[in-house]
Amino acid sequence: MSNFELRPCSDVGREYVELAERHALEIATCAEEHDREGTFPVEAFDAMRASGLVTAAVPQEFGGLGVTSIHDLMVGVNRLGRADGSVAIALNMHFAVSAIVWRMYRGARERGDEGTSAGLGEFLGALGSGAIAMANATESGTDVRFPMTEVTQVDGGWRVDGRKIFGTLSPVADVMVVTCRHRRDDGSYAGGTAIVFRGTPGQTILDNWDALGMRGSGSHDVVYENCVIPEAMFFEESDWGELDEGLLVIGTAGNLGLLGSFVGIAEAARAHVAELLRKRTKQPTGRPLAERHGIQHAMAELDIDLHTCRAHLSWMGTQIDRLLVDRPVTSVSIGELHELMAAFQASKLVVQRGAIDAVDKALQLSGGAGYLTPSPLSRWYRDVRAGPFMQPLSANDAHEYIGKVGLGQVPSVEE
Amino acid sequence: MSNFELRPCSDVGREYVELAERHALEIATCAEEHDREGTFPVEAFDAMRASGLVTAAVPQEFGGLGVTSIHDLMVGVNRLGRADGSVAIALNMHFAVSAIVWRMYRGARERGDEGTSAGLGEFLGALGSGAIAMANATESGTDVRFPMTEVTQVDGGWRVDGRKIFGTLSPVADVMVVTCRHRRDDGSYAGGTAIVFRGTPGQTILDNWDALGMRGSGSHDVVYENCVIPEAMFFEESDWGELDEGLLVIGTAGNLGLLGSFVGIAEAARAHVAELLRKRTKQPTGRPLAERHGIQHAMAELDIDLHTCRAHLSWMGTQIDRLLVDRPVTSVSIGELHELMAAFQASKLVVQRGAIDAVDKALQLSGGAGYLTPSPLSRWYRDVRAGPFMQPLSANDAHEYIGKVGLGQVPSVEE
Amino acid sequence: MSNFELRPCSDVGREYVELAERHALEIATCAEEHDREGTFPVEAFDAMRASGLVTAAVPQEFGGLGVTSIHDLMVGVNRLGRADGSVAIALNMHFAVSAIVWRMYRGARERGDEGTSAGLGEFLGALGSGAIAMANATESGTDVRFPMTEVTQVDGGWRVDGRKIFGTLSPVADVMVVTCRHRRDDGSYAGGTAIVFRGTPGQTILDNWDALGMRGSGSHDVVYENCVIPEAMFFEESDWGELDEGLLVIGTAGNLGLLGSFVGIAEAARAHVAELLRKRTKQPTGRPLAERHGIQHAMAELDIDLHTCRAHLSWMGTQIDRLLVDRPVTSVSIGELHELMAAFQASKLVVQRGAIDAVDKALQLSGGAGYLTPSPLSRWYRDVRAGPFMQPLSANDAHEYIGKVGLGQVPSVEE
Amino acid sequence: MSNFELRPCSDVGREYVELAERHALEIATCAEEHDREGTFPVEAFDAMRASGLVTAAVPQEFGGLGVTSIHDLMVGVNRLGRADGSVAIALNMHFAVSAIVWRMYRGARERGDEGTSAGLGEFLGALGSGAIAMANATESGTDVRFPMTEVTQVDGGWRVDGRKIFGTLSPVADVMVVTCRHRRDDGSYAGGTAIVFRGTPGQTILDNWDALGMRGSGSHDVVYENCVIPEAMFFEESDWGELDEGLLVIGTAGNLGLLGSFVGIAEAARAHVAELLRKRTKQPTGRPLAERHGIQHAMAELDIDLHTCRAHLSWMGTQIDRLLVDRPVTSVSIGELHELMAAFQASKLVVQRGAIDAVDKALQLSGGAGYLTPSPLSRWYRDVRAGPFMQPLSANDAHEYIGKVGLGQVPSVEE
Repeated sequence: MSNFELRPCSDVGREYVELAERHALEIATCAEEHDREGTFPVEAFDAMRASGLVTAAVPQEFGGLGVTSIHDLMVGVNRLGRADGSVAIALNMHFAVSAIVWRMYRGARERGDEGTSAGLGEFLGALGSGAIAMANATESGTDVRFPMTEVTQVDGGWRVDGRKIFGTLSPVADVMVVTCRHRRDDGSYAGGTAIVFRGTPGQTILDNWDALGMRGSGSHDVVYENCVIPEAMFFEESDWGELDEGLLVIGTAGNLGLLGSFVGIAEAARAHVAELLRKRTKQPTGRPLAERHGIQHAMAELDIDLHTCRAHLSWMGTQIDRLLVDRPVTSVSIGELHELMAAFQASKLVVQRGAIDAVDKALQLSGGAGYLTPSPLSRWYRDVRAGPFMQPLSANDAHEYIGKVGLGQVPSVEE
Repeated sequence: MSNFELRPCSDVGREYVELAERHALEIATCAEEHDREGTFPVEAFDAMRASGLVTAAVPQEFGGLGVTSIHDLMVGVNRLGRADGSVAIALNMHFAVSAIVWRMYRGARERGDEGTSAGLGEFLGALGSGAIAMANATESGTDVRFPMTEVTQVDGGWRVDGRKIFGTLSPVADVMVVTCRHRRDDGSYAGGTAIVFRGTPGQTILDNWDALGMRGSGSHDVVYENCVIPEAMFFEESDWGELDEGLLVIGTAGNLGLLGSFVGIAEAARAHVAELLRKRTKQPTGRPLAERHGIQHAMAELDIDLHTCRAHLSWMGTQIDRLLVDRPVTSVSIGELHELMAAFQASKLVVQRGAIDAVDKALQLSGGAGYLTPSPLSRWYRDVRAGPFMQPLSANDAHEYIGKVGLGQVPSVEE
Repeated sequence: MSNFELRPCSDVGREYVELAERHALEIATCAEEHDREGTFPVEAFDAMRASGLVTAAVPQEFGGLGVTSIHDLMVGVNRLGRADGSVAIALNMHFAVSAIVWRMYRGARERGDEGTSAGLGEFLGALGSGAIAMANATESGTDVRFPMTEVTQVDGGWRVDGRKIFGTLSPVADVMVVTCRHRRDDGSYAGGTAIVFRGTPGQTILDNWDALGMRGSGSHDVVYENCVIPEAMFFEESDWGELDEGLLVIGTAGNLGLLGSFVGIAEAARAHVAELLRKRTKQPTGRPLAERHGIQHAMAELDIDLHTCRAHLSWMGTQIDRLLVDRPVTSVSIGELHELMAAFQASKLVVQRGAIDAVDKALQLSGGAGYLTPSPLSRWYRDVRAGPFMQPLSANDAHEYIGKVGLGQVPSVEE
Repeated sequence: MSNFELRPCSDVGREYVELAERHALEIATCAEEHDREGTFPVEAFDAMRASGLVTAAVPQEFGGLGVTSIHDLMVGVNRLGRADGSVAIALNMHFAVSAIVWRMYRGARERGDEGTSAGLGEFLGALGSGAIAMANATESGTDVRFPMTEVTQVDGGWRVDGRKIFGTLSPVADVMVVTCRHRRDDGSYAGGTAIVFRGTPGQTILDNWDALGMRGSGSHDVVYENCVIPEAMFFEESDWGELDEGLLVIGTAGNLGLLGSFVGIAEAARAHVAELLRKRTKQPTGRPLAERHGIQHAMAELDIDLHTCRAHLSWMGTQIDRLLVDRPVTSVSIGELHELMAAFQASKLVVQRGAIDAVDKALQLSGGAGYLTPSPLSRWYRDVRAGPFMQPLSANDAHEYIGKVGLGQVPSVEE
């Protein structure tokens, strides 16, 4: 990889990225099989649990590796993306929850809210011990702002009912962070989060993930039917449908690693095809393909795409760290979060399209060889297309939001 | 489909397109299965033989439907592309051979070459009776200008040795038109064409097509090993490697239908997602997705892509007919052919990219639903990407050629 | 120019285009001066009046050249665009009025409305004698659907009050077709058209056009203040703000020639730079620039843009003729007009962007020489950018409209 | 400007950027006049000399402000670009020379070459006292690698003969750094640099800059005819035509500020049009334009362009500082310089196109108002187009170079 690959900024980040690179070597060898069979790479998560990699985003005081920089976390995920995009986005799901829980913990501490900080501290302790957490947010027929999964108060706690889709990481997650709504006495809805431990009666994790790409990500449906959780495990957060602090932090700090994953896929495709072009010759001259002008021009276009992706990730990672990591949680205004979110959505559009275009160009450069099933290029072409589906926000809504923020209008998306 | 879909210009073209549309209804029902299993739609070709559709490009005097307009042939293939891209490109392969043989026949007649015209007339008669022909041109490690398949004179004819890849239509083709080279006495090579009937000893049609998309196209390898053909079945044409009349006609008239196929795929994706957007509603408002601004904007981008594709196909079809159908064969200069080829390559780049982008936009509009295996969008996304691999010319070489022609340089592509 | 330039379809169209080409030779020699001085090419319009070119769009029965094909009219304007974009868009303004008046006449005849058809016949007679007409539609702070210019009934006729901007052709127009509104008794507004002859008291044509480009188009402000016209010269048409038949016909048939103008500019830039690249050599090799790979690649991109522009114009011209010229006026439904308008807006976006990109690429290929004031490239760069401002619709609104039509929603644009 | 504008990294950089911002306020008020008249803003340079801003790139030990970070220098130039692009690129010319002289000085010190370091130290002292330097490199009919300006040994020094174009900053430069060639005894040419003080007999600075944009940059021709300079003022550097260390440092560290200038222009256009959209209302609703969906969508596209520009500048500035500022000069290999140059060329293509597109989008958003001469948008549209002409490398050659470096071929550009 070139001198311009993404690099961690902190010392602890560097150790973590090296560890991720070691795992990547092993993970790469199984990617094709998991793709073909549509199986989840359980062995990869076992290994990452064993090495402690899964605890990367947890502060050292809670037993984790202590990589608090969102930028640096993204770099490690980028390395895994080169090996297997499915593993990378699944691990990022867990890192996102870890980072956000830690941020909530910091906020509670700043506000002197000891009850909440104690509870979140326990959660962090579990994550530091290797527990794996996932967000369980997407539903059919609505967007993440408006979960239809409903929480109802019952004796001894709360009952959760609903159906989630795209449940990445569900085959090994120990804890599900379930977005839901709760009908208030006045008939309005509150939005909130339910913490559901794997195996709670009433929770069914299906085995039905079957998609064009990211076939090893275990993104099954998860059904909640009369699933009762303890009183303390539901957190009411805001009005239902609001683009609130929680969603804005998830949509930026939580999603940066996703972008890193897709760029990793594109980098793998680039390395693969560059090798091929240097080695393959063409008749009647027998010259390597790499010497041809048309090839060089197309490779330049590919590299321009990749440089643009990396520039955005590096820049956006710095902006996120500056606002969400370096500053006290309670010092950040909602307006600043919207500005960050708007800039992030711009980076997201550019990076996901850039990664797709880079893989497309690698296919073109392969001259047809990459279109055959045995070529990893055909897998990367399918995997990398998952990017634009990642919410929040939908690619269909991003321009509206960016434009409103940029013009000083109320930041929102049409319902 | 809108009022702006591609439409045939001639009366016979209209009948043919209606026939193609009737076949398309049946073919569409089997596309998913052939894609999943990687099987060739033999039944579709049986039906098209039975109805006479396969004879469309053969003049009526030889028993065909007599659609001599390349533009109109493309429109019918476009309709099949909406049903199954694999069937469309396979049928186009046959139409391309048919149209070119007819053009060669016309040329021989104009030159008063009765021997050649008689032989080609026989070929046309066979095609008019329902025989299916394919070009067998692509090889690994070289481009179509420089076939490495070698023809050597032997007792009673010629021996063919070589290996072809991407042999679309091979499961049902009765005749293979094999590009090859022949070593002259002075050590130089001539380029030429060998006609090999299916089942000739020494020809082996493998069953090894396994690709990202176009999985029903039967594009197997075909191996020629000591495969002896009669004296009259080899035609020496020009210096090996020359971008000669034959390649320029194949690269324009022969390939227009391919572009029609890919636009058909994109039109199918457009129709599918438009239907979905009109029907699917979204919480909490329950409004159809089609009412949302972001959706409308993305749909506009998709339609702009499709209109551009259709404008190019319509315009290019007219240009091809004007030069290659309406004019005497021998009145057309090689310079005019290069001008046409350069314009065609421009259309090819725009149309194939436009079709890919339209399917991509349809996926985006589907909001994730299209990424799941059961959705035909996931198949169209894989199928449509085959477009840029179609030669001549490689997408890596097209700009060089267009630029040279545009600047009055010797029209060529780096070897 | 290449074999693929736009060509007229009808015999009368061919004569007209040849006439336009003869005028273009003369017009080209004055373009630079009019640009520098910001003066209107009165001499060009005198010459085109003398030769009868200005009557091209008027049927022969009314004394005109009888080019009824909108496609063919566009081709002639395209040729003038190569010489001077300002002349081309100014003449198109007049052709647009001529063609629309003829269509209105046909409609009146079909409906048996003899009063209207007689009046319009008189108008056509004047146009056939060389009178020059312009639409006077654009105003500041509103779009063309909602003219604020107001018509009020007075003794002996109507009083017109308002201010128009972008009044292209105003220095020589004999008749202004002024869009306006009229307050009905119930307080609602009707939209309509007032015909104002040059020199009517209360009309002031300013001399204030001073813009980045199209500096010779005479697009002055025209002020109407207590300007009284005869009873018969105001036509109430529909509800104010409606995207009605009139606007849809203007927005398609009336605007196609504008697109042709901008493509003409791009073609001139292409021809200029291709000549330069073939002649200019570069040290230390002394080879012509045209032999360099990077140059050839960029020229290919330019030609791809131009081919796309021409394909759209050719295709869209055919569609317009089919619906608006070949069919009886009263047989065309409003739904068909919206479908045509949506497709036209797609072509408009692509063609205007394509023309701009082609000129931009020509500048790049010139290597800095084109950036200097004496180079016509610097003028074409300024002129060609006028394209996206042409209404209806604004480039800011086009996607919304195309998307709505494409999804079967009520065709409209946000107010 | 948003929270995401470019920001300096160092303390001294922050002071410098604040100083630049103060100058920008004054400079902005004269930009229109200098553009209209084509005059050089001498008063701006007088003021920047007086404040010490012109010494920014000179280390404090030599009397300068000591902004050694290339990234930070670029940020200040970016601020001036918002006020007047001509001033920004002219000042960057001087900063580029200052930074490169300092780097050469460091290199000489590292190598223990006291003679050279003493001479360069004197040069730095002059720059620290406010002397203004310019590179005088571009010639017609050749690229910057192959200067045709010739240096010949004469009694008491060297004679310089040649003609330079695009001599930005020439109205006020005290020293010209003239690229040239020198014929060796064996008939081959060496490339080198001649230092010519303003007013040396035989040097004529013309007053002939007249271009589409950047009209205040004073980019006159400079003619050298029998212009004799002292022995010590010519530095032979390498083989003529080589893409050597000097050109690679100029092409990266020297040109980053140019990119900052063009982004500054785009930012000014963005701020101008955003203000307009928030204030201007539209009939019949009277709502501000900023509330319209189409406007918001286009503004999002503009902001995405700008974010991409800033991400590239921030990322590339960091890479340049890391390699060219933080590391010992003699520790950097030519291979590393080529890798940096290739990445820089990618950033250059993206940033210049992004800036042009952003201004184009601002014009579109203005709805025609921006096309009028009094609007600064019409000036920015002309100024921003100068970007792609900046060498090295020509936009026509960049892909070839990037592709070769990316594929491990010999890094070069076709002669």
